[in-house]
Amino acid sequence: MTDKPTALVISAHAADFVWRCGGAIALHTELGYNVTVACLSFGERGESARLWKEGKALQEVKDIRRGEAERAAEALGVHELVCFDKGDYPLHLDQEDKYELVDLIRKVQPKFMMSHSQYDPYNTDHMYMSQVALECRMIAQAWGHNPGEKVLGAPQLYLFEPHQTEQMGWKPDTFLDITPVWEKKRAAMECNQGQIHLWDYYTRVAQQRANHFKRNSGGMSGGRDCKYAEGFQSIFPRTVDEL
Amino acid sequence: MTDKPTALVISAHAADFVWRCGGAIALHTELGYNVTVACLSFGERGESARLWKEGKALQEVKDIRRGEAERAAEALGVHELVCFDKGDYPLHLDQEDKYELVDLIRKVQPKFMMSHSQYDPYNTDHMYMSQVALECRMIAQAWGHNPGEKVLGAPQLYLFEPHQTEQMGWKPDTFLDITPVWEKKRAAMECNQGQIHLWDYYTRVAQQRANHFKRNSGGMSGGRDCKYAEGFQSIFPRTVDEL
Amino acid sequence: MTDKPTALVISAHAADFVWRCGGAIALHTELGYNVTVACLSFGERGESARLWKEGKALQEVKDIRRGEAERAAEALGVHELVCFDKGDYPLHLDQEDKYELVDLIRKVQPKFMMSHSQYDPYNTDHMYMSQVALECRMIAQAWGHNPGEKVLGAPQLYLFEPHQTEQMGWKPDTFLDITPVWEKKRAAMECNQGQIHLWDYYTRVAQQRANHFKRNSGGMSGGRDCKYAEGFQSIFPRTVDEL
Amino acid sequence: MTDKPTALVISAHAADFVWRCGGAIALHTELGYNVTVACLSFGERGESARLWKEGKALQEVKDIRRGEAERAAEALGVHELVCFDKGDYPLHLDQEDKYELVDLIRKVQPKFMMSHSQYDPYNTDHMYMSQVALECRMIAQAWGHNPGEKVLGAPQLYLFEPHQTEQMGWKPDTFLDITPVWEKKRAAMECNQGQIHLWDYYTRVAQQRANHFKRNSGGMSGGRDCKYAEGFQSIFPRTVDEL
Amino acid sequence: MTDKPTALVISAHAADFVWRCGGAIALHTELGYNVTVACLSFGERGESARLWKEGKALQEVKDIRRGEAERAAEALGVHELVCFDKGDYPLHLDQEDKYELVDLIRKVQPKFMMSHSQYDPYNTDHMYMSQVALECRMIAQAWGHNPGEKVLGAPQLYLFEPHQTEQMGWKPDTFLDITPVWEKKRAAMECNQGQIHLWDYYTRVAQQRANHFKRNSGGMSGGRDCKYAEGFQSIFPRTVDEL
Amino acid sequence: MTDKPTALVISAHAADFVWRCGGAIALHTELGYNVTVACLSFGERGESARLWKEGKALQEVKDIRRGEAERAAEALGVHELVCFDKGDYPLHLDQEDKYELVDLIRKVQPKFMMSHSQYDPYNTDHMYMSQVALECRMIAQAWGHNPGEKVLGAPQLYLFEPHQTEQMGWKPDTFLDITPVWEKKRAAMECNQGQIHLWDYYTRVAQQRANHFKRNSGGMSGGRDCKYAEGFQSIFPRTVDEL
Repeated sequence: MTDKPTALVISAHAADFVWRCGGAIALHTELGYNVTVACLSFGERGESARLWKEGKALQEVKDIRRGEAERAAEALGVHELVCFDKGDYPLHLDQEDKYELVDLIRKVQPKFMMSHSQYDPYNTDHMYMSQVALECRMIAQAWGHNPGEKVLGAPQLYLFEPHQTEQMGWKPDTFLDITPVWEKKRAAMECNQGQIHLWDYYTRVAQQRANHFKRNSGGMSGGRDCKYAEGFQSIFPRTVDEL
Repeated sequence: MTDKPTALVISAHAADFVWRCGGAIALHTELGYNVTVACLSFGERGESARLWKEGKALQEVKDIRRGEAERAAEALGVHELVCFDKGDYPLHLDQEDKYELVDLIRKVQPKFMMSHSQYDPYNTDHMYMSQVALECRMIAQAWGHNPGEKVLGAPQLYLFEPHQTEQMGWKPDTFLDITPVWEKKRAAMECNQGQIHLWDYYTRVAQQRANHFKRNSGGMSGGRDCKYAEGFQSIFPRTVDEL
Repeated sequence: MTDKPTALVISAHAADFVWRCGGAIALHTELGYNVTVACLSFGERGESARLWKEGKALQEVKDIRRGEAERAAEALGVHELVCFDKGDYPLHLDQEDKYELVDLIRKVQPKFMMSHSQYDPYNTDHMYMSQVALECRMIAQAWGHNPGEKVLGAPQLYLFEPHQTEQMGWKPDTFLDITPVWEKKRAAMECNQGQIHLWDYYTRVAQQRANHFKRNSGGMSGGRDCKYAEGFQSIFPRTVDEL
Repeated sequence: MTDKPTALVISAHAADFVWRCGGAIALHTELGYNVTVACLSFGERGESARLWKEGKALQEVKDIRRGEAERAAEALGVHELVCFDKGDYPLHLDQEDKYELVDLIRKVQPKFMMSHSQYDPYNTDHMYMSQVALECRMIAQAWGHNPGEKVLGAPQLYLFEPHQTEQMGWKPDTFLDITPVWEKKRAAMECNQGQIHLWDYYTRVAQQRANHFKRNSGGMSGGRDCKYAEGFQSIFPRTVDEL
Repeated sequence: MTDKPTALVISAHAADFVWRCGGAIALHTELGYNVTVACLSFGERGESARLWKEGKALQEVKDIRRGEAERAAEALGVHELVCFDKGDYPLHLDQEDKYELVDLIRKVQPKFMMSHSQYDPYNTDHMYMSQVALECRMIAQAWGHNPGEKVLGAPQLYLFEPHQTEQMGWKPDTFLDITPVWEKKRAAMECNQGQIHLWDYYTRVAQQRANHFKRNSGGMSGGRDCKYAEGFQSIFPRTVDEL
Repeated sequence: MTDKPTALVISAHAADFVWRCGGAIALHTELGYNVTVACLSFGERGESARLWKEGKALQEVKDIRRGEAERAAEALGVHELVCFDKGDYPLHLDQEDKYELVDLIRKVQPKFMMSHSQYDPYNTDHMYMSQVALECRMIAQAWGHNPGEKVLGAPQLYLFEPHQTEQMGWKPDTFLDITPVWEKKRAAMECNQGQIHLWDYYTRVAQQRANHFKRNSGGMSGGRDCKYAEGFQSIFPRTVDEL
């Protein structure tokens, strides 16, 4: 247990946390958070095309992907990277698997959580992950689950940016300026040698979101300059003392 | 012009600002904001049934409603109450009317704005008001509208709580604790002598929203106590440096 | 004024009330209702292609369409057919026009109202009509509009079936068995000599809706037989003493 | 088997049927219905915080919750309370469990059914329950399931009111006046000693819904007085002979 | 493997492919496609009421339904009919079952796929089937699933027409003229002796869709004549070189 | 009149057609279309911040913007650029203005039309334009509007890409490969000297859409390479002879 604020990212595949919220991770780490990342799988079957084309075997693919994830996590300053190794395409968690994730949630006691969009016809692992994140958040709040443990409060669940946002019905309501940590995110992306084509893709995403940041913070009249940003959709309402 | 932060409430009928965001007004006033309220009409035709049943004439109804709005505004600490007197049921603004509202927006330079829900089959004035608020916000941002005036930045537009929320498709994403200023809101509500039945109705609304505030700030595990709250739906994304 | 229950159909063009709710009109007339039909236009410009191809002039087209509407209304047992003659493609009502419609609503004091779907990218007159119906219903409820007149209660607004329902986002929540009055609806449809191709189209619609009636009343296990039905979408919630 | 009309409430946790449709149960019982309540779990893990804080063990929690549910059922006049004891947070039914529920549905042959909202990010048990209710309704309609048994017709599935309605996308289309049975609902609520804070919360819900009942039955012009009401959302269309 | 273009229809119950896309199957067969149909079940429990009423046993029902499906497939020119026999009401596929379907998808390498609507409260098998179709499409695209096999590209998934389209939220974006093959579809429908009432129902569906085809291809001004059509909703965007 | 196929772009402000569909214009021009662009305003008040900051007067701003639009149109190969000069922020068309647009639609007889997204809380001119495009399309189809003129068929209305797509609820269903004409689009963009920051923004948009083009045409397994693309949302269903 620590006095530092904490956050928990729940990622279906090994690299999702890098592309989709690497900036948020690095920034909150700099702000003094301990950010934990849960990778439910390595994306070994479905998101490692290059390695399979090279003829690698399953364990090799997983090892390589794990290594990339570890290096990316380090680049971002991740507090702890937890690899669940539950398989992908499809990802499936039975009850015991879910309880493992609940254990992690309770251990971290995150101030906020992150996961995938709630709809994704291209990648059903993503929407499954988001559904499981909600289910495990609920279990972690249950006083009767492992009585005596500290139960979870009510952390926000942010949905990070999916590929082809409009097809997923994902709508960002929060833009985070990640300019101060951009180099770390870029470095983390470059740890994923099998998806080189995505480095520039997600660099452009960050640049477009920066434009949206500026527009929504004042636009042509006082908008704050921003070079790189990330967008998030909130599931739950905020509670505030000032609007 | 002032250095104080400012807010602008755009209300279709005289009493809307009391029921729907009276707490936000009083709270932000206490926080040091100058809060301006624009009432586009007095609700004289459509929301003054009791007065008409008593046989009052149109001007009498308007005068009484204006008086109530002024007393309510005073109770809440409103910086300025601007009555546009454009008529109601239906409310309609022609281009010059809209430019008057734009003038006010530019004069206030609000840090945030408030208005009605975007759909309301019971009360088309409400959804019309919200549409006009967006249109005037856009005009106020145009460098070519009255060149030389200070143009508007990109203030949030919060939609305050309608009657029968579910029928309006209104979904609050922000709960504001108004416990510290509750007595002011209750006093302001009691200025509306023609709608006594709504005093308790909106008191209960505030109590239910307080329950939601507590639930969303931690629930059974650390939720902050709250006795009265108000809910708001945001139109635009937020821009932040920490989630 | 009468003791009979009443209903009011608000139709953008002359023939809409026949295709879309002719069965409901005939059935409620048989049930003892006085059903009034308001045709805001004759559909003279946009829904009379055959007549224009024949070289008719505008007044001729309107006269022919009025005659067809009158005969159809008679076939259905319409209590009163009110032709507003406001023009179509586009239909537009200014404030005085709306007040005429409000006058009619108040005169009829309908137990329920009917109009078009809320979205129709093919026919903007339809969605405009529905929006105006809501606006005029609101004005008719205002105690300050023509004080002294009997104000309107809270009649349901049913949206009748549009062409290409799925494109309009129209979803029926109520199916009405019109088998007992089917011959009247067919006869009314046949009054529209310019749209012969629609006779069979809307006969098939009624047959499909009858299938849905049977399915929803019990299906393979106790569903009530039905040969012809119409579907409606409700805007407002119902208030009941038994579910 | 009986000649009395019947209804079936399918509740994820022991107390849901009290807060969300206790009035409907008591009212229909008075109207001569046999109302059966299925509690799929006791809410022992997730909705019994107070008991866990007191150090109770699982079986004790379940026993206490069962007792409360039984007393509440009695207060409402429930015909039969069926406790499935399938566990909660998460609730999960395997195929045999579902077939048990199908057996009950067929035994009851309900004129209408009730369950939870279709979306609930706070409580995935609720949305799961609603999904299972639809699945079991379908199985109960299958002539090939336990051939020879009386198959189910097409009862309405009403979704009762969730907590924080707007977050669930729940929209009531039917308001039921429960004023005549209010004392029974209040008494049933007071059987739940572990959730005292909800007694007043759901009393206020009933008062707000009564306001909506009045508004939708005529409002300022003929609306029927109502002190307590409940709201429901229908999944299926109604089939009627008069609108 | 063949050079002919291919398509794959994934049907929850034996007859779905006939009612919902029989025309598309016959037409594409005439256009030179090999069209494969996967029936995950025979609809033996839930869609064979007549046979159960006649006292048939389960195996008999399945045999009869299989025979009907085979004859219908033949009438339509289906390249291969694959009956998975996984049971219905409810249909459930475990991981091995899904992998069987993946094997078929990879074997066929379809240019486009077809399945059910994404929502169906009447028939949860249908929405489950659609969800599984997306999941298996994803697995078939995974380079790590059975490495060495030819992985799937990105075929469109068309959702064919459900019963009661509006209740399912199904919105067709593509109308296909099936006039040239209508007799084949009618013949295939007539193979389903247990659902005679649906022959005319789906004939009328085809006639209504033909009206929509004409309307959307030019209407009163150049619309192409069409006697029978089918409608489809696309899940994925199209990629084109000309609009 | 010409035998060449035609298209019509309806743009609220002078530069919209460049950023949002410049590629489609250039490509279809190369394919042999005559593409007409209607600019309803120059964006003089609301989208010319730089010019106002430089102290230009209204007529100067309009002249400069017109010049830029003309040069951009030339770069794209636009057949005819029609500047309506109806004013912006807000844009408003009265009936005569709409009839002018109808005249143009009928003159062009477009095979397809393009306009803005249907929702845009940042820019109400955009959603107004889209609504007017639908209304004028309807009027152009009316046989009674200027009888004797050739009436319009049923062209698709494509909605081109707005800024901040997710906030507008815009979902592309069609990706067009504009790689062959990219240099022309870039050149056209560079004609807009007042919005230099958008050159790179919309270059990145085109690159991201190219990624989506590749993904949807086969992805890692046969996806067609594409460097620049544009996305469009269709309002109406397509009518086809092959899927």
